[in-house]
Amino acid sequence: MQFNAVLDQLKLYEAGKPIELVVREYGIEAKDVIKLASNENPRGCSLKVIEAVREEASKMNLYPDDSMYELKGALATKFGVHDENVIIGSGSDQVIEFAIHAKSNPSSKVLMAGITFAMYEIYTLQTGGKVLKTASAQHDLAQMLELYKANKDVAIIILCIPNNPLGECVDTKDVYAFLDEISPETLVIIDGAYQEYASFKDSAKKIIPSDIIAKYPNTLYTGTFSKAYGLGGMRCGYGIAQPEVIKALLKLRAPFNITNLTLKAAIVALSDESFVEASVRENFEQMKAYEAFAKELGFEIIESYTNFIVFTFDKDKKSAEIAQKLMEKGIIVRNLGSYGMNAIRVTIGTPEQNARFFESFKTLYM
Amino acid sequence: MQFNAVLDQLKLYEAGKPIELVVREYGIEAKDVIKLASNENPRGCSLKVIEAVREEASKMNLYPDDSMYELKGALATKFGVHDENVIIGSGSDQVIEFAIHAKSNPSSKVLMAGITFAMYEIYTLQTGGKVLKTASAQHDLAQMLELYKANKDVAIIILCIPNNPLGECVDTKDVYAFLDEISPETLVIIDGAYQEYASFKDSAKKIIPSDIIAKYPNTLYTGTFSKAYGLGGMRCGYGIAQPEVIKALLKLRAPFNITNLTLKAAIVALSDESFVEASVRENFEQMKAYEAFAKELGFEIIESYTNFIVFTFDKDKKSAEIAQKLMEKGIIVRNLGSYGMNAIRVTIGTPEQNARFFESFKTLYM
Repeated sequence: MQFNAVLDQLKLYEAGKPIELVVREYGIEAKDVIKLASNENPRGCSLKVIEAVREEASKMNLYPDDSMYELKGALATKFGVHDENVIIGSGSDQVIEFAIHAKSNPSSKVLMAGITFAMYEIYTLQTGGKVLKTASAQHDLAQMLELYKANKDVAIIILCIPNNPLGECVDTKDVYAFLDEISPETLVIIDGAYQEYASFKDSAKKIIPSDIIAKYPNTLYTGTFSKAYGLGGMRCGYGIAQPEVIKALLKLRAPFNITNLTLKAAIVALSDESFVEASVRENFEQMKAYEAFAKELGFEIIESYTNFIVFTFDKDKKSAEIAQKLMEKGIIVRNLGSYGMNAIRVTIGTPEQNARFFESFKTLYM
Repeated sequence: MQFNAVLDQLKLYEAGKPIELVVREYGIEAKDVIKLASNENPRGCSLKVIEAVREEASKMNLYPDDSMYELKGALATKFGVHDENVIIGSGSDQVIEFAIHAKSNPSSKVLMAGITFAMYEIYTLQTGGKVLKTASAQHDLAQMLELYKANKDVAIIILCIPNNPLGECVDTKDVYAFLDEISPETLVIIDGAYQEYASFKDSAKKIIPSDIIAKYPNTLYTGTFSKAYGLGGMRCGYGIAQPEVIKALLKLRAPFNITNLTLKAAIVALSDESFVEASVRENFEQMKAYEAFAKELGFEIIESYTNFIVFTFDKDKKSAEIAQKLMEKGIIVRNLGSYGMNAIRVTIGTPEQNARFFESFKTLYM
């Protein structure tokens, strides 16, 4: 059967391997598998959230409040905006999907960094749109601006601040200067999935959604409960933008796009920011151990403003092989081979998980 | 800001009003609100599922197994197909969204019954495709075939068996005879969201996915955990088709499209089919009371093969007003005015809920 031609060029996103797969394929017990591949919060989530979700579990037969009144209200309060500035997605990537599908088409282009979140490209290709990437792997706003000016048909620019999967982060003042040069007709998506981490490490990286959408009505800020809030499994993210943008995106949102347990989890998570603070603080304490480890072993790293770190290897080591051997020992990391890099991305885990990573890695490669 | 032109003609789906809204707007306590508007299972869900989800709640930080290995396996076993015949969606409507987005485009048409699930039309319009509806509100396969033959560019036909929001159900033998006339290049979606109900009431309505996709490789069967399984709030459905169809749809699936708690809930739900049987049996016992009530009050009904029933009114009664007045009494039903009907759709509730509906309805209108 014939399907739409745009599907032909689409590749599938390769998700981080789940623990269940390692259990199945390598016969390792689930309790002995460490997953440092998907930038999940190793501390879990707030205990208040777990309690609330357990209580809500008796209502799984009921559809969620599709207006998401309470969650939108809580997010609007947190960010100092109004309900009509907020859209909820099944992960912030769904909000990004809506935005790309709403604006990109076969005669437009979507501009992004050389190496950035893989779904941006997939969502663009789904619309028949073309992808423009900077030669630089990391975000280089000067290069991006040059490409933008050289191409008249850029409908969307996506900035990942800080960038997944590399970890680097542009300065907010440079983002503002960049936005000054962009047409109000170009949608600029600012993916802030790891903003809690970046803004903790360096306030010069902090994006304030209310400020950026007021100054630049062509921006869409996206955030998530999947990382610092520790709710990756619950699929909840949000977009903050001017009502004109939100309204367009809402037209592509199917009803009940998050579960009722997710709705409850997100609402309660917002009432326990102390969990987030503790998670982010511990993340950077633990990251020091990774930096020291890389120095000791002589691997290069990319300075990270996130909850993961990238080790890049010389030609004598192969990232695919390293990732595979670690997996056979029950440690799942992300090989960045599919991004064209000889590198692995490792999520900062708990102290115990990190110690096991260091030990296994040393045994394999020293 | 300019968005893609297809968005201009899109209307938003009007979901059943949530209990929270009635609590907020009419100051009625949540425990006193009865929702008979969204065809949820009034018995809740299997207790085994609640228990399993409560246990899984400690893992909300972890993304689900994106291969959905275990759930696909369980569904494949249940339906006598292979894993590669199965796709999982956030509700079966997401599978239908994938299918329409994969096949419909600005130069094709999607054919459906005069009054059927509203999202079919919305998903079609999102692609720029055109919607063709039969003059008959209910499924009339002869009319549908006539329209199909009169239009050379029908990419998709959607059969809702039984039909939401009307409740009628075509016979399986007539569906097979219809499919004999359809080109193998036309995708036929068979939405079986309420199949557990229809096939219980009348085995002549039963669709066997493995049989239909074997005989007609151009069909896609969709089913859901939202209705008989009592998991509407968890957003889980599935599609069953030939691998060629599944592969195309998978290209439009974003990773992690259901939560890890949803995955667990669906897997455990499949291990407790006795809950489904009891739910479906009670549904039809209770439906008798609705039929008797309509007869007593002189309202017309449409014979229903689902867990809801439609009351149609003469001109002297207005469905919008009836729905509004019931809501003010804390009873939420679905006004079918947005479908162009002077009718309400009422979900069959628990005996207590139904008794309260009958009583309130009588007080208002006798």
